[in-house]
Formats: sequence, structure tokens, C-alpha cells
Amino acid sequence: MSATAAMKSDPKKRAQIVVVGAGFAGLSAVKALAKTDADVTLIDRRNHHLFQPLLYQVATAALAPNQIASPIRSIVRRQRNTSVILEEALGIDREAREVILRDRAIPYDFLVLATGARHAYFGNDTWEDHAPGLKALEDANAIRENILLAFERAELAPSGPVRDQALTFVIVGGGPTGVELAGAIAELSKRALACDFRHTRCSDPHVILIEAGQRLLPSFSPKISLYALESLMKRGVDVRLGTPVSEIAEKRLAVGDETINADTIIWAAGVRASPVAEWLGSKKDRAGRAEVRDNLSIENAPEIFVIGDTASAASPDGKQVPGLAPAAKQQGAYVGEVIANRLAGKPAPPPFRYMDFGSLATIGRNDAVAEFGGVKLTGFLAWLFWCVIHIYFLIGFRNRILVTLDWMWSYVTLERGARLITESVGSEEGAPAAASRLMPIAAE
Amino acid sequence: MSATAAMKSDPKKRAQIVVVGAGFAGLSAVKALAKTDADVTLIDRRNHHLFQPLLYQVATAALAPNQIASPIRSIVRRQRNTSVILEEALGIDREAREVILRDRAIPYDFLVLATGARHAYFGNDTWEDHAPGLKALEDANAIRENILLAFERAELAPSGPVRDQALTFVIVGGGPTGVELAGAIAELSKRALACDFRHTRCSDPHVILIEAGQRLLPSFSPKISLYALESLMKRGVDVRLGTPVSEIAEKRLAVGDETINADTIIWAAGVRASPVAEWLGSKKDRAGRAEVRDNLSIENAPEIFVIGDTASAASPDGKQVPGLAPAAKQQGAYVGEVIANRLAGKPAPPPFRYMDFGSLATIGRNDAVAEFGGVKLTGFLAWLFWCVIHIYFLIGFRNRILVTLDWMWSYVTLERGARLITESVGSEEGAPAAASRLMPIAAE
Repeated sequence: MSATAAMKSDPKKRAQIVVVGAGFAGLSAVKALAKTDADVTLIDRRNHHLFQPLLYQVATAALAPNQIASPIRSIVRRQRNTSVILEEALGIDREAREVILRDRAIPYDFLVLATGARHAYFGNDTWEDHAPGLKALEDANAIRENILLAFERAELAPSGPVRDQALTFVIVGGGPTGVELAGAIAELSKRALACDFRHTRCSDPHVILIEAGQRLLPSFSPKISLYALESLMKRGVDVRLGTPVSEIAEKRLAVGDETINADTIIWAAGVRASPVAEWLGSKKDRAGRAEVRDNLSIENAPEIFVIGDTASAASPDGKQVPGLAPAAKQQGAYVGEVIANRLAGKPAPPPFRYMDFGSLATIGRNDAVAEFGGVKLTGFLAWLFWCVIHIYFLIGFRNRILVTLDWMWSYVTLERGARLITESVGSEEGAPAAASRLMPIAAE
Repeated sequence: MSATAAMKSDPKKRAQIVVVGAGFAGLSAVKALAKTDADVTLIDRRNHHLFQPLLYQVATAALAPNQIASPIRSIVRRQRNTSVILEEALGIDREAREVILRDRAIPYDFLVLATGARHAYFGNDTWEDHAPGLKALEDANAIRENILLAFERAELAPSGPVRDQALTFVIVGGGPTGVELAGAIAELSKRALACDFRHTRCSDPHVILIEAGQRLLPSFSPKISLYALESLMKRGVDVRLGTPVSEIAEKRLAVGDETINADTIIWAAGVRASPVAEWLGSKKDRAGRAEVRDNLSIENAPEIFVIGDTASAASPDGKQVPGLAPAAKQQGAYVGEVIANRLAGKPAPPPFRYMDFGSLATIGRNDAVAEFGGVKLTGFLAWLFWCVIHIYFLIGFRNRILVTLDWMWSYVTLERGARLITESVGSEEGAPAAASRLMPIAAE
């Protein structure tokens, strides 16, 4: 008996739609279900939706965490058929049709899984401790505090390897995240920070961007890749192409025959899907993403949909749907329509087709690259375009105003407003964490 | 040989002035020394100056942490004779004239100690674990996350004692901090939050303000105290006067014969000075504050000054200088002048005299109390006055704009913008802290 049939047999029972994950995909599915005569339950283990495309700005002290995060409850407040559960989904019981939480289970008639992705270290899981990635606000906070504390360490250290290591920042991975991080760290360290210190000059910080492939931004055209390379070099970033990383240890990284000592190593070289395919026992691709049919449901389960970064979907033309925010949103809206139509007895929409509106990546102040259709934009115009798009899509009117103001401020003054190290370096509170991070650690 | 004499004997050596603590007092001393021909070193264990009067707004999700904190390095960037050290001062070597840090010592000719105060539990130190106070950003972040998670717990719990306990918020201490916290938590819980939940009504949260004395705001006039009491009661705060706390344990508090079960207990009943008097081996008062002479230096050491919340000073009229931001700033400026004059060979300024510009406390939206000279203000006018004063004194033009906007936004929409729980409730990251805090804990 199908989910729809089950419901029809008991007309008094409203359909239970459960959405797991309040990222772009999940939230957009929930919104598409606003008018449906069903109970929608949104489960997330965080209380906020995160505007991930700007996360690197939190990591580089340009924006404060709350400027790119909105409480999920506020976002769906006016959607009366929807309730929110702040808990972690631990698995799916397909027989019982339940999502398993820690101490209870949530029954579903329709299930939408949008649990996203984390970093992937290609089998070198120990690297994660030494080269954290950037996916959640905690990651961004930790990276920001690391960078700021590295400058404090350098200020205390005499010239020499300890000081050089503190002022060396390595980003692994030359995709959009890596390029944006490298550009932003170069700006932060060489402009906003250096002049606040007495013993650190603007030329001291050393920002290295490492890419295994032969060009940056491989998803863009080669011309754009070249532009990004030249732009980063102009900003003082030391870009190494065709340089696979062979080892990452504490504050140390091996590329080819060379060892680079750096207090700050950031991983931007790949992601791994959350374990939805394991939960479902369904087919997955090499990146661990659950393979879905052309309506984004999984094989033999028309009531279970997988969307966003944890889904492996293809458009009817055979093109793989990329792991980008616009794709996630489109999938969410599509699945909402599929479910709404099925509940209303309307015909199913045509197979999901990803609308590619182009790609964007920013390199720094006044500088970005954009590619849509055949049009390529670089430099200031692309940067303006990038600003407008990102402000437009930031959730909530309030965030838009605040972020716009912050950007305008940073632009005019070159200042970074969100340079908070929350931890104290003291031991009074019994928390020596930051203190030990301040200690110069001898290079081996 | 006095410090000045020592310098005069070696004209090439610039005087070394060390200021410990970058609160209102320390920072204002540093600023007053901007034009002095001396090296000024500012030591703090945090990288930011905190605008403490608005800390309760971070604790109640109205403002984000970075809106009331500025990087110390940015504040003194243009003051070329000043350098900043991010480390904790551990003591003073008066013989060697050095401030002791963890792995080195900073020599001084003049020393200004402005290390502030922490909470005092009147000998019941175990209470601190169960009823944290509000002094640093971490405290505010922890309290905010506690309040938000309590609402999440209540939403999951069935009616009964577990749910009631989650929605009970106790503030101990009826001074300005206690009153401001009680008003803000009532507003947050009964207005901004309650409508975001499906199973929690506006009348459910129970905010209790406990004061041992017979009236709120004892530093104000009785008429103002009465006004504050009535205002808080109108806002649904359960105020208990003449009610000393006899015991605080985990999520439980005893007052008289009554036991109150509450997930959130906040301490606002007293502060204790940082251990400057112990460092110096100097006289101290009952609150642990170092006793200073009429020029704010300590006995037998004209080169050592103690200012701010850690000093016990009296104006020439015998009145004790209160532990307020304006007093701290005035002391800092005064000590700067004393040192500058001494270095320049000018006569010393007259003894320090605290200029009392009045007291202010806010109760909530549209409502505050103010008292200056013989003038008493209450209600909307006092609140407007409070807003203007606080925005004016917020450090940095940028923070002023952002805070003003945030307040305007909250005022118009009743929303709270800074409702971040940074931690995930999941266990994936190996951090079950928030998860366990989400679990309903049975009332004993």
C-alpha cells in the first residue's frame, strides 16, 4: 500500500511530512509545503539555518556569526502547519516509516532527507585534526580565533622560524571555497590586521593556496581560472598548482619534497555526503551520496526523497546536479511540489531539471569572477554582482541590512568588525585552551 | 630613588608605563597617556574591550557579542606610543618593578592596575556552578544558550514539573543588573520566543527575581525602587523581596522554606575584586578591593595606581567611589594626568574627585529609571535617555550604528536577532554537551 493510499483509507488522519535538515534544500521543501493540508515536521540538530556561501567571511572576521544565521523557528513561524524539532536524526526505520531520534521516533508518510555534507579527507581522517574544514559556524569561529591568535603569537615571538610559522596560512584546495578563503585571509592579514600590530609588517604574513590540479576553480572556464590565479598572486597569495598534499600533521604539511610549517592549515579540498544512503540501505555514488530517481525519490520508495548535497541526482540531459545552494533550493521546491500534488491528487510534475544560473566566486575587495550562460565577468563588475546576489539571497530582511552595512563599512575603512576571540587566554576560569594556543610552539 | 628620579638619571631611557586591564578604567588611562613621551604597554587576557553595561542584552539575545566588543588593538591603533600584549598578568614583583606574565616579565616605571571584578558568592563558592554570573562574553553566551535550550526542552516535554522547571528563570539580586536581566528575560521569553513555539504559550514562562533586601535598586531612591517593582510586576516578573537565598544546587534554589526548581538560575547579587591587593600585599576592604590614597596610588608606592572595580577609593568628601563605568573612566583619565604631569615635571593635579552624573537602569522596552542630581525620570523618557547615553558611549562609530539599528529593529518587530545556539545538539562532532542539556532532567 502506498503512502497516499494509506492516507486515503483514513481521511481523518492528516499526512505526516518529515523534513530532516534545515539547509537550503530542506528549508525550501518546507516552504513549498506551506499550503499543503498536512503536518510538516522539520528536524535539525542546530537551532539556526546557515547561509553557508558567506561562512568564509565569518572565518575571516568580516561578518559576525549571527549575521549569516537565522533561527529556524523564526523562519517558519508563520507557517502554521509546520513544527520544528531541535534534535539529531540518527537513522531511518523504513519498515515502521519512522525517523529515529535519540529517545523517540517521528512517524512519516513522506520523508525528505536534506542532511548535507561534511569535509572529506580522501581516507586520511587524521588530517582533520590538523587541517579543519569550513562547514558549520563552529568551524568558522575556530578558524577565526586561530588566525587572530596566530597574529598574537607572532607579535610576541622574535624573528625566526616560530614567528614565520605563526604567520603562515595554508589553504588546501583551489575550488571556490579555497579561492575565497585565500583572498580573504590575504586581505585580513596583510591589510586589516598587520597595521594593528607593532612588530608585524604587512609583508610578513605568508598565505599559501595549494591545489592538486593544474588550475584554480576547475568548474569555471580556463580563462576565469587564469584570472583568479593572477588576482590572487597580485594580492600576495602564494599559489601552488599541480601540488598534491602527501601528508598533514600538527602545524606541518608535506607537498612533494617540501615541508611547510604553518600554525594555520585549512581544508577546502572536498566534501563527503552525510550517511543518508547508509540509513536507507540505498545505492550511493563514490562521494557517498544517495542515488535518486528523476523525481528525486529513491528506488522502490516513492515516499522518500533525498535532496541537496547528500543526493546524487542528474538532470534529464544526464548532467549531474552540482552541490550548490541554487541547486539545493530548486530540489527542495521541486520535492515540495511533488508531495503537494500527490496529496491533492494532481498529476506529478515533469522530472527534476536543474536550472543553471551560473557560477560566482569572489577573490577579494573589488574582485570576483562570474560565469553564466556564455557570459564571463571578472573584476569589479563581477564583485558588485556577487554582492547584490548574496545580499538578495540572505535570509531575512534584517540580516540583509546588517550585512550590507558591514560590507560598506569594511569597504570604506578596510577594517574587520568581527574580530572576537571569545576565550580568555588566562587560566582563572580553568580553561587554558586559548592560553596554550598562544604559546609559541617550536617548529620541528 | 623614585621612579621619576630613576628616569631622570638616564635621559635616553623612555619611561615604561604598564597598564593591566583594558576595561573602562584601563583604556581611559591609556588614552590619557597618548601624548606622553613614554612607552605604554597595555596587558589584557582578552583581545577585546567589552562594553559591560550592555552585556545583559547579549545574554538575552538582543545583541550579538561583537556588537558590544571592540578589538583592543584597533582601539589603540593610532596611539603610536602604545603596544598591546594579549596575556594574563599573574602577579607583581614590586622589588624588581615587573608585571609577571606566564613566561616572562614586563618592567615598569609606572604601573596602573585596572583588573576589575568577578562575581562574589559570599563564601558559597559551589553556587557558582549552578548560578553563573554575568561578567564576560562567555558568561553571556552561556546564559543565552541556556535560555534558548530551556525553551527547546519545554517544547519537547509534556506538561508537568519537567516542563515547568525548564520554563522557570530565576535571577538572584535586585540591583541594576538583576532588574535589567529580569525585565529582558521576561520580554524575551513572553514575547519574542513564545510565539515561535507550538506548544508553549506566552503565559508559560515564569521569571522570578529574588532580592534579599527590602527593595529593588537600593542605590536609587525608594520612589524609584517602587516604580521598578511595579514595572517588573506588570511585565509578569515574580519579584520576591526580603528573601535571602539559603542554598543553590543543580537546577534548584532554596529561599526560606520554599524550594524553587529552575533550569536557569542567574547570579547578579554581588562582585568580588580581582586579587590586586594580594599581588601588592597592600591593604584591602571587605570586598577585596585595594585601598588607594587620594591620588589613586597605593601606600608607599607612588608609582603604582589601582583604579576601577578593583580599587577602594573615596572622594575628598569621604564618599566611596562606586563601581560604575563613569567612575572607572574618570579614574583612568585622572591617573593618566597624574603620570603625565609627573613625567613632565608639572605639579600634581588635586586629589581625585568622582563626578556623579547620575544613575540609570532599564527595565524593558519603553521603560527605564534615571536619577541625576535631584531629578528623577521614569518610563519612556528615561528609556529614551538610557538609549541615547548607551549608544553614545559605545566604543566605535560602527558599533553605534549597528546597535542602533538592532534596537530599532527589535523595537518595531519585537524580534530578537541574536538567537544563536552555536553548539549542535548532535553527537557527530563528539560534542554531546548541548545534547545532554536538551534532555529533560527530572525534577528531584
